[in-house]
Order: sequence, then structure tokens, then C-alpha cells
Amino acid sequence: MELMLTEWQTENLGLTVRVKETLFSGRSEFQEIVVVDTQEFGRMLVLDGVFQTSVFDEYIYHEMIAHVPLCTHPQPKHVLVIGGGDGGTVRETSKHPTVERVEMVEIDGMVVDACKQYLPETSEALRQNHSKVKLTIGDGIAHMRQANSLYDVIIVDCSDPIGPGEGLFTHAFYQDVFKALKPDGLFVQQTESPFYHQPLIKRLTKDIRSLFPICRTYLAPIPIYPGGAHCFTLGSKQYDPLNVTPRKLDFKTRCYNSELQKSCFVLPNFLQELLAGHN
Amino acid sequence: MELMLTEWQTENLGLTVRVKETLFSGRSEFQEIVVVDTQEFGRMLVLDGVFQTSVFDEYIYHEMIAHVPLCTHPQPKHVLVIGGGDGGTVRETSKHPTVERVEMVEIDGMVVDACKQYLPETSEALRQNHSKVKLTIGDGIAHMRQANSLYDVIIVDCSDPIGPGEGLFTHAFYQDVFKALKPDGLFVQQTESPFYHQPLIKRLTKDIRSLFPICRTYLAPIPIYPGGAHCFTLGSKQYDPLNVTPRKLDFKTRCYNSELQKSCFVLPNFLQELLAGHN
Repeated sequence: MELMLTEWQTENLGLTVRVKETLFSGRSEFQEIVVVDTQEFGRMLVLDGVFQTSVFDEYIYHEMIAHVPLCTHPQPKHVLVIGGGDGGTVRETSKHPTVERVEMVEIDGMVVDACKQYLPETSEALRQNHSKVKLTIGDGIAHMRQANSLYDVIIVDCSDPIGPGEGLFTHAFYQDVFKALKPDGLFVQQTESPFYHQPLIKRLTKDIRSLFPICRTYLAPIPIYPGGAHCFTLGSKQYDPLNVTPRKLDFKTRCYNSELQKSCFVLPNFLQELLAGHN
Repeated sequence: MELMLTEWQTENLGLTVRVKETLFSGRSEFQEIVVVDTQEFGRMLVLDGVFQTSVFDEYIYHEMIAHVPLCTHPQPKHVLVIGGGDGGTVRETSKHPTVERVEMVEIDGMVVDACKQYLPETSEALRQNHSKVKLTIGDGIAHMRQANSLYDVIIVDCSDPIGPGEGLFTHAFYQDVFKALKPDGLFVQQTESPFYHQPLIKRLTKDIRSLFPICRTYLAPIPIYPGGAHCFTLGSKQYDPLNVTPRKLDFKTRCYNSELQKSCFVLPNFLQELLAGHN
């Protein structure tokens, strides 16, 4: 028997992988959670039918969502990760020597448990109870609204803006993010595909620009996501990734490097034009 | 009835589009040629089941394969395009005011005819018999071996290294390219996916480095290709794209810009390491 799994990435575009084995399948209060072992991407987390992270390419996403904002900040100490249930973002964040504490607020405990069991490399920092990492299972939106500590960097490592991730793409949420950041703080969010989510990207860029003096978009190649390219949006109170001298990492990375830290912000014309329309 | 077309981009990875209509289907001496109209990508050329070019994203591929080498050269006059039967590369090349003559050698006349009929925007320069463009239906490998004029820039806009494109990825072909270039000439070739064709990329980079003093790899995001990211390899006798001040374009582009001209050469670590291994 040959099993195939297809994600309909848009209404008219499907990405299909051959499946070796379904390792986990469950339904939480929030979503359907599946971990499959695939021929092409190795083990992969799938939420409500959407490919989230795979052993094949997770390092690209996690290095780019963590190191780009963290190297823009001259001395990030207190970091908040919203979402990121697979643990890859806190794994990368906790590698920074300047970082003293990484709070992580993930809404779905079943995602964390499944990843700790079936994606051991990605969830390494969670499995090993990394001393810097403090995991809370809870609502990131509520946490942000009530945040009483101020963060240097906030990383919004969310799923798509349908289902539990929806409220993380709103003006109200960005206001709470702004308030929870120190006067020189900055945040980043994964903001979907430059090809397939242009109205969303336009809207959230407008929202972030209305609050933060600096708003920058960057790109990374991610094979499991629609179109293979993915956007990240950075809102900052003081440090501009285009102007700062980024801190250098003192540990090995598989994708990220200091030149990519700059070049990832260079956008093709069609994306520049999309964003310019909403200045 | 709902029609779907799936390209198996690797043995274990399929990309599926909904098809509105099959506009052309034929078998030439060389390959199966299909033009379909799709929901997601608009009209698309498919050769032997492989997605080649679509109205949705063709500008990215054609601008990046043409303008990056052409802007590296200070004054490209005589350009040779091998392959490129859809006409997109000669369309972009002929826009450069310095370019006086674009020779194009495409092996499969049926591809040209199908594209002239069904992909009118992409094939514009061929349809309108652009005064700079001289099209020859013939074997690019043989043409290169016998080339008696010397070119400033050669663009190898080929299909995959299976079928008619195979001989365009060999050391012997690169030797002929070297001989057909002026003492300050350069060439570029599409060189497949950084994720799925690593052994091929290693081999051809080694071959090109053994002949050309300068060899550089660059990337572009192309949704219809495997993994959504695509490599181009540039071999040059004199001008190094990392060091020259690129010429500015005086016409509008949808993807390419002067900053991308530099940033596209910044490679993620995994690709740097792949290529470094073959110095």
C-alpha cells in the first residue's frame, strides 16, 4: 500500500508527499495534529492538514525567524516566543549567549508533546528543559495583553491566520506586542507567502507601520511552504536591520550567515511595489 | 469534470494544479509538448511532464537569467541564447540598448510554435520578429561546437538534464562555451534546485571552475520549480558579478533590481558548503 499526503496549499495548488508511516494522529481542543514520516521531507508536523515543519528544512525557518531579529538587537536578554510548539525557535534562540531567558507561550500542549516525542532534534531545547527556556501552555494573545515584563525581542512563530493563529495577525495584537517591548525592542512574525497571501501581507504591514517606526520584510526559501518562499515581517522601535551592524554568531548554522542577514531584506520589485502601496 | 495535472518533481514529491483547459498537446521528435491553462499559474508549458514556464511566474526566471549576466558585462553586444524556446529570455535580452544581436538556437521548433500561439506575452519577441533576434531551429551543442562568431554573453536556458537538455550539462559543452566567448565574455546556465539536484550542481560547478577563472552561483524564487528555489551558475573570463558595478537598467522590471543583482549571490550555508567542497 502506498500512502500519499496532499496539502492543498491554495484552492488550486496541491503539494503531495509519499508517506512512510503515520507516527502520531490526534485531535486537540484547537486542531488536528499529525506527525508523519515522509520519503521526501523526513518527519513532518501537519496541523489541520497544513505542513508546518519538517526535518528536511526546519533549520531554514527556525534560523531565519530567530537569528535575523536577535542579531539586529545589540544585546537581547529577554525573549518571548509566541507559538513555536515544535521547539525549533526556542532551540535557536537559546543558543545566543546574550539571551538569559526565553519565555515561550504555546496554546496547544498536544503539539508540544507530539513534537517532543516524534521530532526530537527540533524540540531538543524543550525535551532537555533548557535552563533558559520557560514554557507556558496558554493563549499567546491573552499573555501579550497582560504581559508585565518587558521583552527585548518577541518572536511570533504562529501557524496560518486560520484557526488558533487568527488573532495573531490583528492590529490589536500588534498594539499589545508594542506595549510588551522595551523602548528599544523589536519583534518578528512569520507572514506567509509573498505569492499567495498578498492581501494579508499588505494589511499586516500597514498595521505594523502604524505602530512601529521601523517595519521591514524579509524572505527565506522554505520548500514545504506554498511557492517555496516565505515572508517574515519585523517591527522595531529603534534598531533598523538595514542600518545596524549585526552581531556575529559564535555557533554554527546550516542556513543563516551574516551576509544573508542583509541580503534577505532585498525584495523583488513585485513585493516592493505591494508594500509601497501601503505606506 | 475536474482535471488535475501533477508533476512528480522528485520521486516522492508531487506538485498538482487544477487544469481549466488543455490548449495544445503534441509530440515532437524530442519530447511531449503540452500547454495547459491552469487555475493557479495561468497558461503553462509542460515538456515531458515537467513544468517549464507559466504566465504566473515566468518574469522571475526570465529576468533573473537574462539581466544578472547582462548587467555584469559592461557592454554586451552579441548574445547567444541556447534553448529558451518559449521566447522569454530573448524578450528580456533584446530590451538592453547595448545589445545589437541576439542569436537563439532552440532544438525543438514545435516548442517555439506552441509558445508563439499559446504564450503570446512570453514569446512576444519571437512573434513580432524582433529586429535584434535571429532564431535558428537546431542543436545548441553542435552550434556551440562550430561557433565562428564570438559572443559577449551566452545564456543557456535549457530544460532538465534528462532528454534533449542532457548534453548541456557536460564538461565538453562548457569547453565549447568557453571557446565561443570573447576574452571578456561570460555565460550563465539554469542549474536546477539547490535542494534536489545537489550532486548535479556540485559536478557542473567543478567543471565550470576548471575552465573559467570566475564561477558564481545565484538563486531566485520560482514557485513552479521543485522546492520553489532555483540555481543559476555564471562562468566568466573577466568580470566578477561580486566586484563589478552593475549597469543599471533603463526599463521596468517586475522582479529584478540592482540590489537583487548583488543579493542573489548570497548563498545559505548549506549551499556554500556544497560548493566549497568542490574547489
